[in-house]
Amino acid sequence: MTDNYDECIELMTRRGISLEDCAECTYFLQAKYIKGLTMADCVRAVDEVMHDRDIQNAVIIALELDVLAEKGTIESKYIKEAMMKDDGLFGVDELIGLGMAFNYGPVALTSFGYIDKIKPGRIGELNSKKDSVCNTFADDVIGAIASCAASRLAHA
Amino acid sequence: MTDNYDECIELMTRRGISLEDCAECTYFLQAKYIKGLTMADCVRAVDEVMHDRDIQNAVIIALELDVLAEKGTIESKYIKEAMMKDDGLFGVDELIGLGMAFNYGPVALTSFGYIDKIKPGRIGELNSKKDSVCNTFADDVIGAIASCAASRLAHA
Amino acid sequence: MTDNYDECIELMTRRGISLEDCAECTYFLQAKYIKGLTMADCVRAVDEVMHDRDIQNAVIIALELDVLAEKGTIESKYIKEAMMKDDGLFGVDELIGLGMAFNYGPVALTSFGYIDKIKPGRIGELNSKKDSVCNTFADDVIGAIASCAASRLAHA
Amino acid sequence: MTDNYDECIELMTRRGISLEDCAECTYFLQAKYIKGLTMADCVRAVDEVMHDRDIQNAVIIALELDVLAEKGTIESKYIKEAMMKDDGLFGVDELIGLGMAFNYGPVALTSFGYIDKIKPGRIGELNSKKDSVCNTFADDVIGAIASCAASRLAHA
Repeated sequence: MTDNYDECIELMTRRGISLEDCAECTYFLQAKYIKGLTMADCVRAVDEVMHDRDIQNAVIIALELDVLAEKGTIESKYIKEAMMKDDGLFGVDELIGLGMAFNYGPVALTSFGYIDKIKPGRIGELNSKKDSVCNTFADDVIGAIASCAASRLAHA
Repeated sequence: MTDNYDECIELMTRRGISLEDCAECTYFLQAKYIKGLTMADCVRAVDEVMHDRDIQNAVIIALELDVLAEKGTIESKYIKEAMMKDDGLFGVDELIGLGMAFNYGPVALTSFGYIDKIKPGRIGELNSKKDSVCNTFADDVIGAIASCAASRLAHA
Repeated sequence: MTDNYDECIELMTRRGISLEDCAECTYFLQAKYIKGLTMADCVRAVDEVMHDRDIQNAVIIALELDVLAEKGTIESKYIKEAMMKDDGLFGVDELIGLGMAFNYGPVALTSFGYIDKIKPGRIGELNSKKDSVCNTFADDVIGAIASCAASRLAHA
Repeated sequence: MTDNYDECIELMTRRGISLEDCAECTYFLQAKYIKGLTMADCVRAVDEVMHDRDIQNAVIIALELDVLAEKGTIESKYIKEAMMKDDGLFGVDELIGLGMAFNYGPVALTSFGYIDKIKPGRIGELNSKKDSVCNTFADDVIGAIASCAASRLAHA
């Protein structure tokens, strides 16, 4: 299987998500636990997570689903509507985010749950989006990447 | 949130999956543990699972992804190819299947893992598909529904 | 398998955990989402969760582990010490809490992660404990029960 | 946090579990997928898994619970009985096994489910135990370690 790091980063960029956005959330999660933690540490941890193929696959699928919802390509009228308004009970977005976090242990899982409620930094911005834009999966993608990186730092 | 039972069943039917297909796998999983288990019991348990909204959402998203891969609508060349040949390391399909099984406890989770390797009944048929057809998510959908129903029967 | 509701409630009581303690956390989690939510609703949801056998088993095992750590019965010097000081990287407590939350879907999982960081109500009190007391599993038990009840209310 | 590799291996040895026992199950899981796989590869993968602290903690807790059940130290009459006869609906053993497998992604999770049903090698032997012996957690420990190692090999 090829490494899809480049494709993944490109798709994230197109959807308005940078490694720094993720790293800020990682910093938010870990600064109180790790003395002297820097943003550079967080960016490095995020970058390592992005080299994980399971993460890459989940990110690409998740962000493509947002694109497809915007384009109206998803057939199910119900799912399309649920995604366009980020319905709190839709659940598949959290499920993919949690699936990413699973691979990085309990610290990643509880961090993901925390960030999903608090919505710090770029996650909050993506949530207050225009009506024609779908970020249903995008915010969970940032939250999951940030949480996985937080777990790497916690265990370092 | 509206109940999407009907939409879900219709989409499953269009993708060649019946409640009986799922129930057969449930029977395969539970017959050795439950004395006197009938196919009717299994169909009933499967039908109950299909009324769960978390399951409905996951099933619709999963089967739509197969449709989108067949149509070539998914942009990522890599993901499209991985889905068309059901690449064993793709992982997002198992992740959604496991996400469905989570909600039904350890019996559902271990059953899903078992069925994912053995591929009984309709799952095996869906796996030996033509090149133009994508059943990457379809087989995990059957496996997950069957496993959730198996867990319901185990705890009844 | 017998229902262990009574045994479970008794053990919780002995460890200083009431249904109301759990219900307060559930209220904390759901009050902002459900208009007119009452503490009585939360207590009822918590009580329903306590009738789930998978929950009962996990609660009993978890709280017994705290008791055994206090008594010094656990052989492993390392685990005993990690439990007595609730070492943040110990992880088995969160793992059992997450395992309980799994059964109640994504809302329960993200709620558990949130509450694990915020530590509202009784959870915070259990965390600021005396040196001779072990509440390593107790706080995750409350968090998990509260999160499962929150998920029941969200889907009601 | 100190590395508990040595303590973990010693406890496993005392409970009749060797790295080779785990490696045999890993071989059973992966031989059909990886051409030229050797037992030495599997032992190496198992050994790497054993250096993971989350795994060590879960293994120590799990095996101690078996010891405590045998000694009769667990207070709950119900849990003691459920553990001594490895009651199929007890669930906490699978939950800890699944928690270990989570950290190693979907391949580990589905492998754990598969092995939990098939019970190859040492797992089957541990299951047909004498009445005074408790291996409720031991078999899930082997299955989980083997599945995590299988996932490492699959992604190598």
